[in-house]
Amino acid sequence: MIDINEIYFVTSNDHKIEEANRILSQFGIKLKKSNIKKIEIQSNSLEKIVKYSLLYAIKKLNNEIIVEDSGLFIEKLNGFPGPFSSYVYKKLGCNGILKLMKEISDRRALFKCVVGYCSPNIKPVIFHGICYGNISYEIRGSHGFGFDPIFIPDNSNGLTFSELSPEEKDKFSHRGIAFRKFGLWYINNIAKP
Amino acid sequence: MIDINEIYFVTSNDHKIEEANRILSQFGIKLKKSNIKKIEIQSNSLEKIVKYSLLYAIKKLNNEIIVEDSGLFIEKLNGFPGPFSSYVYKKLGCNGILKLMKEISDRRALFKCVVGYCSPNIKPVIFHGICYGNISYEIRGSHGFGFDPIFIPDNSNGLTFSELSPEEKDKFSHRGIAFRKFGLWYINNIAKP
Repeated sequence: MIDINEIYFVTSNDHKIEEANRILSQFGIKLKKSNIKKIEIQSNSLEKIVKYSLLYAIKKLNNEIIVEDSGLFIEKLNGFPGPFSSYVYKKLGCNGILKLMKEISDRRALFKCVVGYCSPNIKPVIFHGICYGNISYEIRGSHGFGFDPIFIPDNSNGLTFSELSPEEKDKFSHRGIAFRKFGLWYINNIAKP
Repeated sequence: MIDINEIYFVTSNDHKIEEANRILSQFGIKLKKSNIKKIEIQSNSLEKIVKYSLLYAIKKLNNEIIVEDSGLFIEKLNGFPGPFSSYVYKKLGCNGILKLMKEISDRRALFKCVVGYCSPNIKPVIFHGICYGNISYEIRGSHGFGFDPIFIPDNSNGLTFSELSPEEKDKFSHRGIAFRKFGLWYINNIAKP
């Protein structure tokens, strides 16, 4: 029987927990939701946001913890909505982004994910994942969450994240890349044998 | 001769210092820029952002401090850009807001300002100012900063903040209201005689 390593995930987003656990199951890692408050600072840098959240959370929770932050960065909108993607999604939705992108033909964008880990004994370690793609011209698909229905990752034959099955999305998504990097590092450096 | 009360203002925005000092001069108060880093959390509430920034700053600076945060809340955009106005201005500018407001006839909006004060002996005290108005259909005027050129305050005869002289703006601006409340409180409760 394989031991499961359980780690606290400081987040209020159940979609993220589901996605991360789907990706991390192959490494024998299970994330469980932490109910401590996540503090996020305002910054252009996902890394700075994650590091601050980790250092804040580790003071409250004397345990292994994971913090994740991600954002959609649109080239012709100067990187908007970036680290504020979740807020912008709640306020404007996918339609707000499509409105801002009206009459803009260069639709390049990227999704970036930063995963941070620390424990009472281990200083923050950071893992990155980037997925390049384009903003679609309309909302398409039903899987995923947030801006998934308007993001077409490269090499998806023109399908949005929301038109891919969850497992297909994980293969090249920013979150898939970052959490797999973390999983590999964790089983090689931390996991109990 | 009148004594001038000097207080640190934790901000990187020189426009705000200029505006606040214009308003506070009648109370014998002068704000000087503090060079400590301002930490702002991500929150829907300006009050929470200001309180967190105050408590963070007071640990670094053993002195009287002021923190201010303000935002433009647009009714039909669910309060966007709100507490993230500064970030959104940098990324999208006034034109981004005008694009989002295309074909929207209800253009009601408000500017809100929260001023916070604390000292090593005094817990945070918070002052509010709200200015109601509408989003214009085009950029107008040359005074002020940020979204001033597209905000028409009520009772300005249709002029935007940027078309008013600085002194006229102060009369009914969110920042004018909040800083005058602070100034009155300060001379009645704190100022050295």
